[in-house]
Amino acid sequence: MRFDEPLTLRSGATIAGYELVYETYGTLNAARTNAVLVCHALNAGHHVAGYYAERPDEIGWWDSMVGPGKPVDTDRFFVLGVNNLGSCFGSTGPMSPNPATGKPYGPDFPVVTVEDWVHAQARLADALGIERFAVVMGGSLGGMQALAWTYLYPERIAHCLAAATAPKLSAQNIAFNEVARRAIITDPDFHGGSFYEHGVVPARGLQVARMIGHITYLSDDVMAEKFGRALRRRVDEVVLRDDYRFTFDVEFEIESYLRYQGEKFSKYFDANTYLLITRALDYFDPALAFDGDLARALASAQADFLIVSFTTDWRFAPERSREIVEALLANGRRVTYAEVDAPHGHDAFLLEDPQYLAVVRSWFERVAARVRAAGEDAAPVPAPAAGAQPVAEAQP
Amino acid sequence: MRFDEPLTLRSGATIAGYELVYETYGTLNAARTNAVLVCHALNAGHHVAGYYAERPDEIGWWDSMVGPGKPVDTDRFFVLGVNNLGSCFGSTGPMSPNPATGKPYGPDFPVVTVEDWVHAQARLADALGIERFAVVMGGSLGGMQALAWTYLYPERIAHCLAAATAPKLSAQNIAFNEVARRAIITDPDFHGGSFYEHGVVPARGLQVARMIGHITYLSDDVMAEKFGRALRRRVDEVVLRDDYRFTFDVEFEIESYLRYQGEKFSKYFDANTYLLITRALDYFDPALAFDGDLARALASAQADFLIVSFTTDWRFAPERSREIVEALLANGRRVTYAEVDAPHGHDAFLLEDPQYLAVVRSWFERVAARVRAAGEDAAPVPAPAAGAQPVAEAQP
Repeated sequence: MRFDEPLTLRSGATIAGYELVYETYGTLNAARTNAVLVCHALNAGHHVAGYYAERPDEIGWWDSMVGPGKPVDTDRFFVLGVNNLGSCFGSTGPMSPNPATGKPYGPDFPVVTVEDWVHAQARLADALGIERFAVVMGGSLGGMQALAWTYLYPERIAHCLAAATAPKLSAQNIAFNEVARRAIITDPDFHGGSFYEHGVVPARGLQVARMIGHITYLSDDVMAEKFGRALRRRVDEVVLRDDYRFTFDVEFEIESYLRYQGEKFSKYFDANTYLLITRALDYFDPALAFDGDLARALASAQADFLIVSFTTDWRFAPERSREIVEALLANGRRVTYAEVDAPHGHDAFLLEDPQYLAVVRSWFERVAARVRAAGEDAAPVPAPAAGAQPVAEAQP
Repeated sequence: MRFDEPLTLRSGATIAGYELVYETYGTLNAARTNAVLVCHALNAGHHVAGYYAERPDEIGWWDSMVGPGKPVDTDRFFVLGVNNLGSCFGSTGPMSPNPATGKPYGPDFPVVTVEDWVHAQARLADALGIERFAVVMGGSLGGMQALAWTYLYPERIAHCLAAATAPKLSAQNIAFNEVARRAIITDPDFHGGSFYEHGVVPARGLQVARMIGHITYLSDDVMAEKFGRALRRRVDEVVLRDDYRFTFDVEFEIESYLRYQGEKFSKYFDANTYLLITRALDYFDPALAFDGDLARALASAQADFLIVSFTTDWRFAPERSREIVEALLANGRRVTYAEVDAPHGHDAFLLEDPQYLAVVRSWFERVAARVRAAGEDAAPVPAPAAGAQPVAEAQP
């Protein structure tokens, strides 16, 4: 979807015009009351579920959650996935041409915040004729967007699902982001963010950044279980018990795994986007303007909530979700809180944990019942707003 | 101290000759029964306590612990600090000339292990006429060396103090080391470890490595308390409440702190040493040769033990110390275990926590009483072994 009306960002900068790539699943009902917006985290995008015939291996990042008969049942709901502004999967971002210069934005792409993304998503909703979402949902950074919807557009969101998230980053969270950014920025191939012009990418920095990220996504326990201290060996090698090779090359399985993840990531992810998205995480802090009082920050929210945390998530531990729950309860909101005993750490929100999926499924049953009770054939909301026009149709 | 007798390392490599820099504090008694060996961790060395008149700012790394009237009382004990083989504070390491080429060893310096260090320390003890240490002690990686003394030289160590340590690294511990190494190795200024010849140092990689390390040394809580989400401001700037600057430059105090630590470190620490020492950590696993049975690995130990852990240490959490305690108890050893409720995380073992220092002090009182009871004027052990000769005298 192309937007020609300029968007003023929280930083004060303005982006003249932009495109957002989106995918939809299921059918919007006549009353337009069954729309679900799925917000993505750091390295995902609009491709939430399913796959394209010509790319059968590229399954959507939340395919366990979204689809026909799945917890977010696309036989009932109209699901919308959108790639955020500044990301690198098709929406306008640092790789896009800067209309002022004709060259890629690179480091001149403005810093974007969670709130900016929500405003851009709201414009997309306008363009699609969705006045109010039945649910806005997401995990991690996606959960922050879902939360931000509740105080930025309280009348446009009926239910909010935020999983594995936090009301703001801790110093330790910021520290990990900062190290990852330093790895990228100090890579000589970064060229101050203008690497596109040099025909290179800061692959070394991206690899290190991704490796750091990956450590924080997994629990200590699941790393121990999956890799432990197992040594990396070729299958045709005779494995002796104590056969260290005394090398800085790959020796342990965990090293091989992290390097592989880092290399894969550096081939598809844009370095400037990595900086932008980690900074959006750092800056998210709705309570900041309310003397740190989260309840006041969320006072305008009208939605019902499902907050989910995972016991072994040390990036955004359950305590961080409980802060949100307490602030919502202080405002008299209806909140379901599930603290899921899952071994996988932060990544659990993306995985097929049966308990987790069952909680989401049953909460969505209630949402579906409300949508039905309100009447699915009521008069629809107004047509798409001016200033936005589809540029292509995705056919997932 | 210069050693001309070759040392065969655990990897099978041999180092032809080498020097170890050491410092001593206090006086060795006539019976030579009051010697305490202090083993260092990643970025420390032989300079354990006190300072030199000409360098009053360079206070020893464990000055809160070691000195006259301190828990390790140098009025009673003869304390020995030694810089390990492969380190970069004066002992033979990657920066030293390789006798085979005349150029710095660089990447050709052999991989060293905790056990190799202990053997080298034992030779130094021989040369100094110390047949048996009253105590071998250390924190973190230093604690691993103290533990290794108890099974490699059971008759040469009466007491072992190991603080904030673990019987082996977890997958997560190895993962953090691996990311730090990748940051160094992929820095173009690393030149495969031969950067000395190019007149550069891989400062960017070292900075990132140190930043990662630093995050793991501090508890989440102490980071929150010391830095939180405070914004970094020049003192002459008017501080508004919500005045993000929307930049990838330093915005939060924690970023400024980590960058400062990283830059400082990159100016004094050798990159090849960083690789060697983190690898020694990775490889430490005394139970590996005993089917993972730590009790069997420690079965030969005869020492009495003080094991100390810190509640907020998530690098080597108390559970890791308890594994050691259980293995020692299974062997019928005398073990004092202190789990200190300190807020500082892994770094606590270096800090002046009153509870911690009191525990060490009282344990050392008992050691001192035993030294006295055995008679401090008994016949001394034999003179320095052949093949080692002092090359200089330190005068702290």
